[in-house]
Amino acid sequence: MKEIKVGILGLGTVGTGIAKIIYDNAELITSRLGAKLTLKKAADIDLKTDRGINFDDGILTDDAFKVVNDPEIDIVIEMIGGETIAKDLIIKAIDNGKHIVTANKALLASHGNMLFKAAAEKGVSIAFEPSVGGCMPIIKTIRESLVGNHIQSISGILNGTCNYILSKITSEGAAFEDALTEAQAEGFAEADPTLDIEGYDTAHKLAILSSIAYGAEINLKDIYVEGITNITAMDIEFANQCGYTIKLLAITKLTENAIDARVHPTMIPFSNPLSNVNGSLNAVTIAGDAVGNMMLYGHGAGMMPTASAAISDTIDIARDLLNGIHTRVPMLSFKMDKIKKIPTQPIDEISTFYYIRFSALDQPGVLSKLSGILGDHKISIKSVHQTERKSNGAVPIFMLTHLAKEAEIQKALSKISSLDIITDAPSLIRIEGSN
Amino acid sequence: MKEIKVGILGLGTVGTGIAKIIYDNAELITSRLGAKLTLKKAADIDLKTDRGINFDDGILTDDAFKVVNDPEIDIVIEMIGGETIAKDLIIKAIDNGKHIVTANKALLASHGNMLFKAAAEKGVSIAFEPSVGGCMPIIKTIRESLVGNHIQSISGILNGTCNYILSKITSEGAAFEDALTEAQAEGFAEADPTLDIEGYDTAHKLAILSSIAYGAEINLKDIYVEGITNITAMDIEFANQCGYTIKLLAITKLTENAIDARVHPTMIPFSNPLSNVNGSLNAVTIAGDAVGNMMLYGHGAGMMPTASAAISDTIDIARDLLNGIHTRVPMLSFKMDKIKKIPTQPIDEISTFYYIRFSALDQPGVLSKLSGILGDHKISIKSVHQTERKSNGAVPIFMLTHLAKEAEIQKALSKISSLDIITDAPSLIRIEGSN
Repeated sequence: MKEIKVGILGLGTVGTGIAKIIYDNAELITSRLGAKLTLKKAADIDLKTDRGINFDDGILTDDAFKVVNDPEIDIVIEMIGGETIAKDLIIKAIDNGKHIVTANKALLASHGNMLFKAAAEKGVSIAFEPSVGGCMPIIKTIRESLVGNHIQSISGILNGTCNYILSKITSEGAAFEDALTEAQAEGFAEADPTLDIEGYDTAHKLAILSSIAYGAEINLKDIYVEGITNITAMDIEFANQCGYTIKLLAITKLTENAIDARVHPTMIPFSNPLSNVNGSLNAVTIAGDAVGNMMLYGHGAGMMPTASAAISDTIDIARDLLNGIHTRVPMLSFKMDKIKKIPTQPIDEISTFYYIRFSALDQPGVLSKLSGILGDHKISIKSVHQTERKSNGAVPIFMLTHLAKEAEIQKALSKISSLDIITDAPSLIRIEGSN
Repeated sequence: MKEIKVGILGLGTVGTGIAKIIYDNAELITSRLGAKLTLKKAADIDLKTDRGINFDDGILTDDAFKVVNDPEIDIVIEMIGGETIAKDLIIKAIDNGKHIVTANKALLASHGNMLFKAAAEKGVSIAFEPSVGGCMPIIKTIRESLVGNHIQSISGILNGTCNYILSKITSEGAAFEDALTEAQAEGFAEADPTLDIEGYDTAHKLAILSSIAYGAEINLKDIYVEGITNITAMDIEFANQCGYTIKLLAITKLTENAIDARVHPTMIPFSNPLSNVNGSLNAVTIAGDAVGNMMLYGHGAGMMPTASAAISDTIDIARDLLNGIHTRVPMLSFKMDKIKKIPTQPIDEISTFYYIRFSALDQPGVLSKLSGILGDHKISIKSVHQTERKSNGAVPIFMLTHLAKEAEIQKALSKISSLDIITDAPSLIRIEGSN
């Protein structure tokens, strides 16, 4: 029987899950692939931990370069993460003519253009389904299932940590800090949660999705990113009362000449299926000119779901190899010579609906001052709600706007912030899918 | 530039949609495929209707055999439907060495084993993404994205007509007949809706999914099928009060020695994401040993969504052809020599939770008689609700059971039905995802 040999870089959670599938589901894989998928080498700096797997002799090594330099290995599965050693190893593996499977969204978002070019020149593939959305086949769906569609937009809940925290605040009225602590205790947030809660992890994934959706070069640096650390139970409660949920969304839309790509907390109506996606689950909606709207939903991270996506990519490459071909589907959806630089629309230029919460002194004439400044900037108010609840002697004033320009909103908020009657920085949340 | 030539059989709604995508999105397809996808011939008995497409000269024909016999055509896209002429055309096309894309679930469910065998012997592929779930990439997801998973179960809302009608009864308390009439008026139900409302269309799709999920021969005839014609607003209202929604589900589970495959109205808890899928939309949840639970959601039918799936299949085959290979992914997920006959578990042998509605005379001792008979059959009652509402002088009695055996339930209901105090046939709905 034919055999495809793979090496794993990094036996952390997902790397171990991949090895488990290769061993435990070997017979299944053979009956679907028509060949044997063999783990030839697996590298990790920690070889002492019992991972619950009986690795065959000679497979484990603490020298990752032994994996990428092994002449028998066809496919290298990189599960180390980060932009340093993982990058060197992938470059070396490509140089050695090996195909790559990776979950490394940070690396692809920052250095993908260079890496995909290097792979194309060498005639190997970089596959990256596990880098976005865990088990959800978002990459394959865009690249293959929607191949006949002009993709118009994608909206996704792509970070389980943020969704867990926001769900916790929603269901329990918890403070952000408490929800984060709980998420950490339950293993849904890292000890250093910055990458997740500040939205960077979501932005890495969005940079990849924007590229394959439109045939654009990967462009991380121009994506507007705002995390969830300023979201309060008060904002969520008000949103719920108005029929909205607050989610950290990755949003990308193709406009006439640019990509509107941004990551920020977003109010979406209950009728949007993303609003029902709770806890650590992820989901992505995709709009295409033929397909209309569709959604994928599932575990966006975790040992076995992400390992499942890595195995899918590995077998995709194995099927090519068994047929003596490579890169049957273009890595970035479009043929390399069709990939263009498409500018990202600056956040200042977008127009959307807004939720604004002001904290103001309880005095006559406050509302008149606020609405006067907003009016000067052509911002039309859809509704205003003022509650009796006081915090620090101030009252919260909630506003929903009609369609407004971000630049004007920011100018108005800056002016309003400097008023004596305003006791705290205003809170701003963008709304999608309203009218 | 290389060119792949296709022919379309049937220019109904979806066939026309496919032609539209080939013409309108030609540049997009070329930039993703790296070759030109050309419509060489399209056949329909009606060549008079204006379909809004400027077909090139010589493409249209009213003789479908001119398509399958055209030596230049590589891929035949069959959109006629049914088990008569479509079958003859597909057999002839295979015999002529052409690859097939089809949305014909009825044909595949009934004659798939023969057709796939014929295709394999001839070295061509039959692709069928548009046959199940419209735009949702359910076939590709099971075959490719979940290739490393033992699929454990699939549950799906796979018929838009039924889901539209049930949603209508739920939201408006409409009678079944009125909801059906409305569905027909709005184009969500056929003039003869039997295939849809009696569950057969869903069963065709389930037969296909059960096969590719487990590597089993297609087995339509042993699937238990029950439609939605007996569902009343009263049942749905009671279900909602208890935290359940009623959906027509296609259910397949792999048990130790058999496949538990069935189509019937099902009560599912609000926490099940399928319960939020309303109107004509479709959704499928898949459970795999690595992936956990995941869901696909989107338009399960309609011109452009289904055409999008057909184009996806067509380009998949085109990519193989451009590389000089065929059937890179096994048509039925597993290599042909690994596909087994797996028996279907008879409905009598399943155990599940049940909702039963009795219509009984308002007399003392009724409940004691009912519960006595159920007890004789080891059916334990979880809750009983009796309302004051009378229809035809009788009162409805609602029951939810603990886990019970179908055979025992049926025996008990048969005995209960013959009691003098029972005024109508009891209504039975199976519950999934309870405990």
